[in-house]
Amino acid sequence: MAKRLKALDAVLAELEKLPAIGPKSARRIAFHLLKQPASRAQRLAAALTALHEKIRPCSRCFNLAEDVLCDICSDSGRESTICVVEDVGDIMALENTGEYHGLYHVLGGVIAPLDGIGPDDLKIRELLERIRLENPRDVVLATGFTVEGEATAMYLTRLLKPMDVKVYRLAYGLPVGSTLEHADEATVVRALEGKIALN
Amino acid sequence: MAKRLKALDAVLAELEKLPAIGPKSARRIAFHLLKQPASRAQRLAAALTALHEKIRPCSRCFNLAEDVLCDICSDSGRESTICVVEDVGDIMALENTGEYHGLYHVLGGVIAPLDGIGPDDLKIRELLERIRLENPRDVVLATGFTVEGEATAMYLTRLLKPMDVKVYRLAYGLPVGSTLEHADEATVVRALEGKIALN
Repeated sequence: MAKRLKALDAVLAELEKLPAIGPKSARRIAFHLLKQPASRAQRLAAALTALHEKIRPCSRCFNLAEDVLCDICSDSGRESTICVVEDVGDIMALENTGEYHGLYHVLGGVIAPLDGIGPDDLKIRELLERIRLENPRDVVLATGFTVEGEATAMYLTRLLKPMDVKVYRLAYGLPVGSTLEHADEATVVRALEGKIALN
Repeated sequence: MAKRLKALDAVLAELEKLPAIGPKSARRIAFHLLKQPASRAQRLAAALTALHEKIRPCSRCFNLAEDVLCDICSDSGRESTICVVEDVGDIMALENTGEYHGLYHVLGGVIAPLDGIGPDDLKIRELLERIRLENPRDVVLATGFTVEGEATAMYLTRLLKPMDVKVYRLAYGLPVGSTLEHADEATVVRALEGKIALN
C-alpha cells in the first residue's frame, strides 16, 4: 500500500468537514486541483481567507453583511414586518420570490435538544429585544416544516404571546405543480385544514 | 432583491468550478464556513495553498509525489511490470487491493477527440521511453472500460506491438456480488468470451 502524502491528506481532511462532501468527492476535488495550475487552488484559498474578513453578521438581523447593517436592514423602504428564519440561506429563498418586502431575523438554527441546541444558542433574546424596540405589527415565523422547525415556531409563539404583535406562520399545503395522488397524507390533511374560500 | 456580497460571490465562483459542486452545494459550503469560526476557512485555505507547493508529479510515473520519485517508484521491492492508468486515483484503487506489486504509469487522461485531447496531451511518449529504458516483461493497460478508455488501450496496444513487451488488459466480466439477471448484455457477452476453465 502506498504511503500517504501529508499535503494531500491535509486538504482531504479539511474538505471532508464541509457539508455535502464525502471522502470520494474530497478526493475528486483534490485530484482535480492538482491537475490544474497552482493558481486555481490559490484563488480558492484567497477567497476563503477573505470570507470572514469581509463578511460579518448584521448587528440587527444577523443576515450576512459587509457593514454594521446588512443591505436589507439599511434599506429604508422596507416594511416593519419581521420574518424569522433559521439561516441566511432562507433569506435568499424569500428574497428571490420578490413578494416579501419586510425585514428578517436569522435565528442561526432551530431548537434541537438531541443536537444540544437550546434556545440560548439561537438569536431569540435578540429577537425579543428587537420586537420591543422596533414594535412591528407582524412577525412571520418561517422556520422549516420539520419537527425542530415546528417546535421552534411553537416556542416562539408562546414567547411572543404577551407582546403586542401579530404572529404568523407560513402556510402548509401542496407544493405548486404537485398532484394529490403523489402528496403524502400529512400534507393533504394540512392542505384540507388550510383550505381557502374562493367565493 | 438583496444586493450581492462580493467576498461571498468570490468563494461561490471558485467552489462552483470544482467537480461535484453545483451552485446549491457551493452556497451550503459557504454559509457553513461563515457560521464556523474563521479558523476553519483559514485551515482549508492554508491546506489548499500548500497542495501544489508540497506535491508534484513523480518524474518517472507521474503519480503524486513529495520527492522527485513517488513512494512506489522509490520502493525497490516492486516488480518491473508497468500498469498504465488514466489518473492517480486509479492507483489508489489498485493499491487498495493489495494484489498488484508492480509499477504504474499515469497517462493523465484518455484520448478523447471530442474534448480535444489527443495522444500528445497524455504521457504516452514518456511511457514508450520508459519501456525502452526499463525493459519490463509486462505492461497492463488499465484505462477505463469506456469508449475512450478502450480506444486509448487499443492505440497503446498498436504502439507497443513492435516492442519486446507482453501487453495485457484488465479482464472484463461480471462484478463480484452481481447476478446475471441484472447485468447488461454487453457485459454478459464479455463474461462468456472470457470464461475460465475450472478443471
